[in-house]
Amino acid sequence: MKTRAAVALEAGRPLEVMEVELDGPKAGEVMVEIKATGICHTDEFTLSGADPEGLFPAILGHEGAGIVVEVGPGVTSVKVGDHVIPLYTPECRNCPSCLSRKTNLCTAIRSTQGQGLMPDGTTRFQMLDGTPLFHYMGCSTFSNYTVLPEIAVAKVAEDAPFDKICYVGCGVTTGVGAVIYTAKVEQGAKCAVFGLGGIGLNVIQGLKMAGADMIIGVDINNDREEWGRRFGMTHFVNPKDVGNVVETLVNMTKTPFDQIGGCDYTFDCTGNVNVMRQALEACHRGWGQSIVIGVAPAGAEIQTRPFQLVTGRVWKGSAFGGARGRTDVPMIVDWYMDGKIQIDPLITHLLTLDEINKGFDLMHAGESIRSVVVY
Amino acid sequence: MKTRAAVALEAGRPLEVMEVELDGPKAGEVMVEIKATGICHTDEFTLSGADPEGLFPAILGHEGAGIVVEVGPGVTSVKVGDHVIPLYTPECRNCPSCLSRKTNLCTAIRSTQGQGLMPDGTTRFQMLDGTPLFHYMGCSTFSNYTVLPEIAVAKVAEDAPFDKICYVGCGVTTGVGAVIYTAKVEQGAKCAVFGLGGIGLNVIQGLKMAGADMIIGVDINNDREEWGRRFGMTHFVNPKDVGNVVETLVNMTKTPFDQIGGCDYTFDCTGNVNVMRQALEACHRGWGQSIVIGVAPAGAEIQTRPFQLVTGRVWKGSAFGGARGRTDVPMIVDWYMDGKIQIDPLITHLLTLDEINKGFDLMHAGESIRSVVVY
Repeated sequence: MKTRAAVALEAGRPLEVMEVELDGPKAGEVMVEIKATGICHTDEFTLSGADPEGLFPAILGHEGAGIVVEVGPGVTSVKVGDHVIPLYTPECRNCPSCLSRKTNLCTAIRSTQGQGLMPDGTTRFQMLDGTPLFHYMGCSTFSNYTVLPEIAVAKVAEDAPFDKICYVGCGVTTGVGAVIYTAKVEQGAKCAVFGLGGIGLNVIQGLKMAGADMIIGVDINNDREEWGRRFGMTHFVNPKDVGNVVETLVNMTKTPFDQIGGCDYTFDCTGNVNVMRQALEACHRGWGQSIVIGVAPAGAEIQTRPFQLVTGRVWKGSAFGGARGRTDVPMIVDWYMDGKIQIDPLITHLLTLDEINKGFDLMHAGESIRSVVVY
Repeated sequence: MKTRAAVALEAGRPLEVMEVELDGPKAGEVMVEIKATGICHTDEFTLSGADPEGLFPAILGHEGAGIVVEVGPGVTSVKVGDHVIPLYTPECRNCPSCLSRKTNLCTAIRSTQGQGLMPDGTTRFQMLDGTPLFHYMGCSTFSNYTVLPEIAVAKVAEDAPFDKICYVGCGVTTGVGAVIYTAKVEQGAKCAVFGLGGIGLNVIQGLKMAGADMIIGVDINNDREEWGRRFGMTHFVNPKDVGNVVETLVNMTKTPFDQIGGCDYTFDCTGNVNVMRQALEACHRGWGQSIVIGVAPAGAEIQTRPFQLVTGRVWKGSAFGGARGRTDVPMIVDWYMDGKIQIDPLITHLLTLDEINKGFDLMHAGESIRSVVVY
């Protein structure tokens, strides 16, 4: 069949909206009509050419929501008409990773997904002249219709609005999940969030939900303070205004009883390796945990004295918020529907597919939290 | 009173055995007759002058066992005649750290201990000419008699031999505890231990006790293979014999089911920051944890790509094996008495106090696992 899609023909060039050819789902696959898709920094990272694993020509986009319109042979977990969120981190429930009970990073289709292909090693997309188009992160939500493995769709509530819950497909889950699933933050915790973009704001609302008592936002842009407070931030620090961020955070978290100070949990949402170090070192001696969420530039490395670890700080990371796609994502959608988390204010711009490049422009200009394309 | 002690008069000079003056215990303190003391790399680190926080003149030694001979006013938890192990990591059970339930690093007397003093800010030791002598790590077990805060002694089984259980005061607890309390290794785990000195061998026997299925020892000295196997090591890797240690460990831990490979837990017992990086990167994607135990040279830093953390590896550290001194150390002594762990083969040399400098020579020559001075 034919479908409209925004195609990334090569790195560094705007997307081109065109008709492309889409093959139907093979065994274990489903076709989804994408109703809305967010535009994420990761799409930008690949489109810019900075992603060393980027493949072209491809159909980008990985933060979508839509409806199942066709299922291939053997598909049992979803049916035509189901509302779903595509998963760039699938959940097969059978691989060593899924069965470990210790990680959400399913490895069932990792190698073909990394090659821009479906699990059988082929692509479902071609240009009208027959040129094959690569899939992207197993999702390709910048196409009105796309094909996904059954294990890479989460069935979600049917009354949830597509133009909001598409954001659960990446940003919301990454931020809220890092708090709930990776850090497992407990009531009363003292926490700091470095970088108050979309991910940082979602971390903040995750912390509020988890019952953290101190939620310190750290950003070099003072305009972000208002955004942070809207989602539950209790304190704001602009590193430009203080001599030493680590010392500032350690002092802020001291109490009459605890004169050592330091955060119980910190979250890096910047991708800057120097900030990641600050986030670790601002943790409380003995037990503070720092969670790396941001994606660093290729080749960049984190660094610290091992004494920081020996005296009890823990350095870990989070991908897709530690959430299991098919199990946890539907619950996060429910949290939104139940008012436990907010999404609406974070969707700052709605666009048509033809306007998709405007979404990248808004991101570059720092004017959007999240732009969403509605088909 | 007078007591015989080996005094560190200045950095880089052999210890001098002499009579010194020891004041009796003040409120909350106890006097202990040290019956045996191990000689640890940390003593050597300070004596050599490499320790930036080293203070002189001082009475070193922190790995002892003895008998309470006098208690100061208000002491309730031990009495004269009790067998005890001095604790360089005390356990007050009242500070923010003890009450956090998340760390063993009690902070009740940290600042004075770091200054070589008792909690009241004074020293109990003087030379016969009146020159004050600093305490060391709150223990000073290189003196036949020493004074310690009540919260810094663990009461242990009275039938346990002093010349063996003194090693529980540091090395045994550091190694076995890192497995049991810090990593909480589970049955069937695949683990690697970097550096098969005294700490590494104790990690190995901790892993055996925890039920690890693969216990891979890594050392550049082939002579250590026999030592490792004696304590439960199942595989040995000499980095000099393989192209890439990380790749080798990842391949060794693959199974027909799990073709990703990597260790569930790794332990650095070398203090070498490059080895610490290998230990982290040899961890399994998704959940592998690397525990830093070794003490790095001043200023040395660990380094890796944050991608290692984002894809699920965890970097943490362990001090005193994560063990709470008064609660856990007596249990470790019982494990030894019950045959769950071995100490006897690790005590390779017994010395008199007059021979104490020979213990340092044996350490430098790599001929001892642990030398113990018996008073």
